[in-house]
Amino acid sequence: MPLVSESTLRVRYSETDPMGVAHHSAHILWLENGRTDFCRQAGFSYRELEAQGVGLAVVEAVCRYRAPARFEDELVVLTRLTEVRRKRVEFAYRVQRLSDGALIAEGATIHIPIAPDGKSCELPDSYFALLEKALA
Amino acid sequence: MPLVSESTLRVRYSETDPMGVAHHSAHILWLENGRTDFCRQAGFSYRELEAQGVGLAVVEAVCRYRAPARFEDELVVLTRLTEVRRKRVEFAYRVQRLSDGALIAEGATIHIPIAPDGKSCELPDSYFALLEKALA
Amino acid sequence: MPLVSESTLRVRYSETDPMGVAHHSAHILWLENGRTDFCRQAGFSYRELEAQGVGLAVVEAVCRYRAPARFEDELVVLTRLTEVRRKRVEFAYRVQRLSDGALIAEGATIHIPIAPDGKSCELPDSYFALLEKALA
Amino acid sequence: MPLVSESTLRVRYSETDPMGVAHHSAHILWLENGRTDFCRQAGFSYRELEAQGVGLAVVEAVCRYRAPARFEDELVVLTRLTEVRRKRVEFAYRVQRLSDGALIAEGATIHIPIAPDGKSCELPDSYFALLEKALA
Repeated sequence: MPLVSESTLRVRYSETDPMGVAHHSAHILWLENGRTDFCRQAGFSYRELEAQGVGLAVVEAVCRYRAPARFEDELVVLTRLTEVRRKRVEFAYRVQRLSDGALIAEGATIHIPIAPDGKSCELPDSYFALLEKALA
Repeated sequence: MPLVSESTLRVRYSETDPMGVAHHSAHILWLENGRTDFCRQAGFSYRELEAQGVGLAVVEAVCRYRAPARFEDELVVLTRLTEVRRKRVEFAYRVQRLSDGALIAEGATIHIPIAPDGKSCELPDSYFALLEKALA
Repeated sequence: MPLVSESTLRVRYSETDPMGVAHHSAHILWLENGRTDFCRQAGFSYRELEAQGVGLAVVEAVCRYRAPARFEDELVVLTRLTEVRRKRVEFAYRVQRLSDGALIAEGATIHIPIAPDGKSCELPDSYFALLEKALA
Repeated sequence: MPLVSESTLRVRYSETDPMGVAHHSAHILWLENGRTDFCRQAGFSYRELEAQGVGLAVVEAVCRYRAPARFEDELVVLTRLTEVRRKRVEFAYRVQRLSDGALIAEGATIHIPIAPDGKSCELPDSYFALLEKALA
């Protein structure tokens, strides 16, 4: 079974805007939270990966906003992999409100591993194996 | 000629991450800056539109990251309309570095006018006319 | 016994900077998290208070940074009241790392209740009573 | 004459909150903008200083909020030094609205130079000299 991680969060006041709802940039941060939790549940810390000199640069991000989220709403971010290659990793996300299951947003991000010099590189074997396993 | 607005900005330290480059969420804020400047150059203030009870909710945002931007880089956001309808407005963006013209990112956002109750509504005539003119 | 609320959070990647530690603006958001959790534990939702037309504007914020917090560090924000008056409320905060108890930061904020017109007003009786009880 | 740098900025939509005014965390970012502009006018780039392995860690920040700032308000941040020592630098700030000169906020930050290992260090001679000159 492919891994689907669940990250819960509560909408921060600072994330809301004059329309009284979460600003659309907040969702981008929530997806990142989902992604780092996913890695942890897949068996590694994103922080360790970076400590080894490999970053996962975002090359594309998309978010579709389905319903507004309000201050203090409790949300869950469901994160899964949609592709794992040595030089490219893709995630997909669903953000739902816990109280009523409402779909708040759907998102996707594409990443490439990069070395400290900013050049594209390959995922180290052990991390590649863990991600492949989480996708299976 | 369709209006293409130019917004300049300097990458803030707070916008950069441990990889030493602008975090991918910062670009989303820059696109918004581009959009509000575009409206101003098209002849109205986004703030006035909201004061009239009409918000432009973001229903989709996409950003493709082409090159990293670093702290203190001066950037320009080029913003143009790609579609204007009574109940839907689309913008496209290019973010470039001023010093060398490097393409930093391309983005697009889709918006729907919403009333204070959060329901979809039509753009007021005067704003619709100004946006149509900016697209022509 | 005065109420001391505990809010746990994990340092987000987006909150860290090129020095590899949480940017000093992140702590300001964490204090706000602590404050809204405090209100909830004191018996009311800050969202309800706003819905009644009363905001708690920040008139002063101070933060002393004692030790760096890193990406993925789990932190706890301890929040308590230091003063409750009809037209002024003060909070104090300690941010600690869960793994080793290290003191990350100490903060304080001063707030005044404001009406929708932005003018200073008095806290509604029921909220004043709940805050007084939480201070006792 | 002591250097007082002027940084202009326009309040971003993403910086405003449900009360329709700039969230108090935005001011902290504006002070940082003021600080980096100050360094540039004093003769060096904060980015270069970091490239030499010296960061200016914030050990204390305080902000007093005098009047609300609204979306699209044009502001100026006036920044000056209040103390320069080898191992400690202090800045003071005034944030004013350009249209009417209204005082929006006053702030102060205290910094210590730190080495890449996070330990306190001394400011390199050339930077210390530039800051001393800017204070004189």
